[in-house]
Amino acid sequence: MGEFDLIRRHFQHALHPAGVALGNGDDCALLAPAPGMHLAVSTDMLVEGRHFLSTVHPEALGHKALAVNLSDLAAMGAEPLAFTLALSLPRADDAWLAAFSRGLLGLADAHGCALVGGDTTGGPLNICITVFGQVPEHQALRRSAAQVGDDIYISGQVGDARLALEVFRGTQHLSADDFAAVRLRMERPTPRIALGLALRGVAHAAADVSDGLLGDLGHILTASGVGADIHTRWIPDSIAVSAILQSTGADFCTEYALAGGDDYELVFTAPPQARAAVQAAAAQAGTGVTHIGTVSAATGLRVLDAQGQPLRKLPASFDHFAG
Amino acid sequence: MGEFDLIRRHFQHALHPAGVALGNGDDCALLAPAPGMHLAVSTDMLVEGRHFLSTVHPEALGHKALAVNLSDLAAMGAEPLAFTLALSLPRADDAWLAAFSRGLLGLADAHGCALVGGDTTGGPLNICITVFGQVPEHQALRRSAAQVGDDIYISGQVGDARLALEVFRGTQHLSADDFAAVRLRMERPTPRIALGLALRGVAHAAADVSDGLLGDLGHILTASGVGADIHTRWIPDSIAVSAILQSTGADFCTEYALAGGDDYELVFTAPPQARAAVQAAAAQAGTGVTHIGTVSAATGLRVLDAQGQPLRKLPASFDHFAG
Repeated sequence: MGEFDLIRRHFQHALHPAGVALGNGDDCALLAPAPGMHLAVSTDMLVEGRHFLSTVHPEALGHKALAVNLSDLAAMGAEPLAFTLALSLPRADDAWLAAFSRGLLGLADAHGCALVGGDTTGGPLNICITVFGQVPEHQALRRSAAQVGDDIYISGQVGDARLALEVFRGTQHLSADDFAAVRLRMERPTPRIALGLALRGVAHAAADVSDGLLGDLGHILTASGVGADIHTRWIPDSIAVSAILQSTGADFCTEYALAGGDDYELVFTAPPQARAAVQAAAAQAGTGVTHIGTVSAATGLRVLDAQGQPLRKLPASFDHFAG
Repeated sequence: MGEFDLIRRHFQHALHPAGVALGNGDDCALLAPAPGMHLAVSTDMLVEGRHFLSTVHPEALGHKALAVNLSDLAAMGAEPLAFTLALSLPRADDAWLAAFSRGLLGLADAHGCALVGGDTTGGPLNICITVFGQVPEHQALRRSAAQVGDDIYISGQVGDARLALEVFRGTQHLSADDFAAVRLRMERPTPRIALGLALRGVAHAAADVSDGLLGDLGHILTASGVGADIHTRWIPDSIAVSAILQSTGADFCTEYALAGGDDYELVFTAPPQARAAVQAAAAQAGTGVTHIGTVSAATGLRVLDAQGQPLRKLPASFDHFAG
């Protein structure tokens, strides 16, 4: 048995959902979406130093590699079905692989998402996952479906992952407890699958926040041909972010929440008459959502400060670790 | 517009087959296989120095990156539908990207295979493609379906790509014309899509030859719980391979044809009563196929030389450029 056969043994996955007609071990896997279902597909490639730090625990990395892909399914309102994993590794480190696969397959099991194929090769560390989900025809939450007058919502809180990164970089300092909390948000993000499913038929447009709230909301606005007004003081702060930024007086909103990135929350729009339905969906999913602004006919994105004045200069979206 | 937006412009693809409900530009693409069809999925990751030489022309690389994935669809008897591309690049070189995308999208167009999503990032050169095809339920050519008494076939010729690699390495020498021919086979392999489709309902089991004939046939035998006898003198030589190996007296069969790899031909089995149907399928596809052996109840793989004697030592499958 070769080195790469040994590696593959770490990724044996017994999960076999109804929509998987043939799993790993042939030239192709065979997927069988249920009748009336479209197959939602997304792919993400993670590279050391750009998408994760070399200090990350491999179990957290395995979790995150799948989480960022599941987050794309959540943003379409799709139910996870399966994924493929292509992995380039500088060497076969058994302990690393055991931890990585534990994090990866643990999250896969939690979402009933089967590993149905892959590829393993030698080379610089690179993780490429392609994920498959099911969504009923005409119920996918598309970026292009925002309408003038829609409320704009964000799930959970944004900015924590960027704060954790800044602590790693030494530009911010946190108590051990606060650092642990934001580090968890950076290294083990929670894909908002349950919320995405609950928002089917309720929300108009949705996107996941990977590059930063303003950037990803911007994708919705561009695709829908509309604009928006966002109120910074409506955006919810996490406890850790509030604490550090009140003590330093730095302007949290213009940097970490608006453009920090790596949040994997959902930004979405829904008509005002759906407010009760949105909150019911949030309660069903167990994920808080906050109304942060309004879709407008006037194109462009206006971010209003606590005094209702538009910010003159918007922070640029954070391009992972390159910014 | 950022560097990576500029990169993405090279990969705009207008192709929109019926099975693609939503292409590029949202969190996910949406695929809609026709009723009664399974979706065949395969993923391959290509790394410089392992799967291709740094000397390869980027147009050929774009072609090959998709070809090796289409080859997996061919081996299942699946019709190409769509693919995603994840690309890690050390720098944004406009001329390189223009040539790479020309090779990639040229082959995609030839097979009606739409680029429906992807990811672009900075990092060491790495190309990860996930490909999607359609195959009618219960008609996929699975590795596990070989039956005792089946004929074993190989399409085209095997060994050329390995010979080209050895010329690059300086261990073999060829005339300019012969080198051009085998280099084309190494750098621009032809996925046997038409043959795979024509073999639906005719062949029992199939696999594509990426790691070497013996290794990939071995996958069929293991999955089917059977063995095989292969006759080396039945294996067709290409003109270039015949010429060089006759002049040097080296034993072609035990090395390049049996275990060279990177061939992207189909090895498949079919019952003896289907011989006319196999040849009709080959004629329809415009791809020659050759009967090279027989599936046996006795497990294990026996390779018989020109005198009908089993080779004592079989060459190991060639693990890309690592061997």
